[in-house]
Amino acid sequence: MPLITLTTDFGLGSPYVAAMKGVILSINPEVQIVDLTHGIAPQDIRQAAIALADVTPLFPPATIHVVVVDPGVGTARKIVYAEIGPQRYVCPDNGLLSRLAARQNPSKLRQITADQWFRQPVAPTFHGRDVMAPVAARLSLGLDADELGPPLTELVQLDWPGATKVANRIDGEVTAIDSFGNLVTNITRDMLAGVPTDESVTIACDEHETQGIFTAYADQPPMTLIALVGSTNLLELAIVDDSAAIMLGVKVGAPVEVKW
Amino acid sequence: MPLITLTTDFGLGSPYVAAMKGVILSINPEVQIVDLTHGIAPQDIRQAAIALADVTPLFPPATIHVVVVDPGVGTARKIVYAEIGPQRYVCPDNGLLSRLAARQNPSKLRQITADQWFRQPVAPTFHGRDVMAPVAARLSLGLDADELGPPLTELVQLDWPGATKVANRIDGEVTAIDSFGNLVTNITRDMLAGVPTDESVTIACDEHETQGIFTAYADQPPMTLIALVGSTNLLELAIVDDSAAIMLGVKVGAPVEVKW
Amino acid sequence: MPLITLTTDFGLGSPYVAAMKGVILSINPEVQIVDLTHGIAPQDIRQAAIALADVTPLFPPATIHVVVVDPGVGTARKIVYAEIGPQRYVCPDNGLLSRLAARQNPSKLRQITADQWFRQPVAPTFHGRDVMAPVAARLSLGLDADELGPPLTELVQLDWPGATKVANRIDGEVTAIDSFGNLVTNITRDMLAGVPTDESVTIACDEHETQGIFTAYADQPPMTLIALVGSTNLLELAIVDDSAAIMLGVKVGAPVEVKW
Repeated sequence: MPLITLTTDFGLGSPYVAAMKGVILSINPEVQIVDLTHGIAPQDIRQAAIALADVTPLFPPATIHVVVVDPGVGTARKIVYAEIGPQRYVCPDNGLLSRLAARQNPSKLRQITADQWFRQPVAPTFHGRDVMAPVAARLSLGLDADELGPPLTELVQLDWPGATKVANRIDGEVTAIDSFGNLVTNITRDMLAGVPTDESVTIACDEHETQGIFTAYADQPPMTLIALVGSTNLLELAIVDDSAAIMLGVKVGAPVEVKW
Repeated sequence: MPLITLTTDFGLGSPYVAAMKGVILSINPEVQIVDLTHGIAPQDIRQAAIALADVTPLFPPATIHVVVVDPGVGTARKIVYAEIGPQRYVCPDNGLLSRLAARQNPSKLRQITADQWFRQPVAPTFHGRDVMAPVAARLSLGLDADELGPPLTELVQLDWPGATKVANRIDGEVTAIDSFGNLVTNITRDMLAGVPTDESVTIACDEHETQGIFTAYADQPPMTLIALVGSTNLLELAIVDDSAAIMLGVKVGAPVEVKW
Repeated sequence: MPLITLTTDFGLGSPYVAAMKGVILSINPEVQIVDLTHGIAPQDIRQAAIALADVTPLFPPATIHVVVVDPGVGTARKIVYAEIGPQRYVCPDNGLLSRLAARQNPSKLRQITADQWFRQPVAPTFHGRDVMAPVAARLSLGLDADELGPPLTELVQLDWPGATKVANRIDGEVTAIDSFGNLVTNITRDMLAGVPTDESVTIACDEHETQGIFTAYADQPPMTLIALVGSTNLLELAIVDDSAAIMLGVKVGAPVEVKW
């Protein structure tokens, strides 16, 4: 059974998501639809780009990922079809795929212009329902992506600043806050190679700091600030059994410093 | 694969929704279940009626829509089966279908009384699990709706006041607030025929006003109040890239006036 | 089609849930995945244990229930496979199954140690994605549970204190608050046998009290405090058409007294 995932900023209780599912299932009743997340903050393209990069590579080859975080809907921004690794994407060209594309070049890019595959009339405020959903459904039925529109040579890029490592110090920042309130940074497991993990290493974020890099959240007692490498191979700061984001008042963009 | 959608006011994290899914799948393991929304405010029949009218017509013919917004559960209120256009509905008869039925007369109505299709014993507090879910599952297996109970001649109606148009003015109101905080009104695209869209038209809501009727949210800069016709063909007021409901403090029922 | 349910404390908008779904569907694309709930409060094992006991018995036989409420992830806590009645469970051994097991002894228990079924490398912070999801997917393809690891003789137990009945009085407590704000107690329908339901019975919770045990929420006018036996056969206190938890400020653990 072909597979389509949906990622939007519509909010968790929005019936707009179901509108897209109705359109998809009306075209291909035999597709399986999986919600990737609808909890992206409104218009937060970067948050969606991170979720896509973290999660979509886990899906079966040829899964079609539809992403509707689209503040420019109805304007001149393009809608694109992309193949990155074995995954397929349908979304506005506004940077949503830039984190994935920074790791691996797309093997195919098309601008989606062929309006015979759209739901008519197309509402200028909801291309998720009228353009992206029906196009994804037709792709799931076997439509050749080359029929969607002209080739595209590049995607809109966002800047994804990496951390920097000098002598006995790494400087990075908080790039995401997960649903437990853990602070996920842009400091990778690879950058931490050779860095001590015992109490001789200090990890600081805003005015808070902790010693040591641990393996599991429960390696420290409840309510302790702890540093560890999380499940996407990035250094994170957590409060054991509580929310570091709330307890510490840290936001995305806060500087993180590793010293040893 | 037959299709059942679920709409409830159970809240997004409620395991009660999964209770209904377990009952449905125990009767028909080959049905596909889609969540329409579980974010209806508790007991808010009008909000659910709008979501049903906006979204259910997008589903494949013969989809069975189960709706459990049911403050009168366990009392004398009826449970109904309805066919409206190609869609099928199972829900309490409390006005949930009144917005759909105002557009198109039901082609079939039955009161659901045949308790051999119910889960026994029926809890007087959860007919979603014990009556509506099992009945929908059996319909998805091919049960003839005529076996559910006696014909019904009419549904409970709610009042859906339309906007009024006189000379150079339309008076309407905010009927819904979507998940972006956009204010959706009862002023239709058809009523706006002949109304100018340039700055000679003023749209007012409570003490706020804006000029012009635009096409896309991004037609104005961020943080601007903008009027446009949304994806359900209704005039709406939005703050570009923010929440008009929160920024303006406007609630459902607020008057909206279009003057030119 | 085999069936897997997911229960987590990841939060409703978390893409981590979709990470697990991607892993499952990559191993078995023909499985149907149902969300039981992702709204468990972080690390709240007791809340999850109640949801599992209330809802999983409603699913078809042989459904595989994966539960990731796992504050001890990456430590020495075990991961278990259990069969309780006709249902199958994959989860950390931290008390999640203790409410189910208090009603019915597991017919099979295995510790999950056979890492050839895991996703490699296993992140010490996300066994849901790297251990439980792939194991569940392989079970859904027919893997014999005996191949998962050694037999286990008992599960971690949590204390589930029952209410006590003496002469003309039952003493219990609030054990859960549902999404409507209703206060669910540990006083069972069976314990209420012989107790009057008219105004001669008083139900008290904290400093609040009400007379009579009713059948349906709408048996009393809006905003009234009402007692009734809910859909899981437990006495509950509700405010008609509003939230008792918010209106009364009652929390889990509050004492409840029935006197007649």
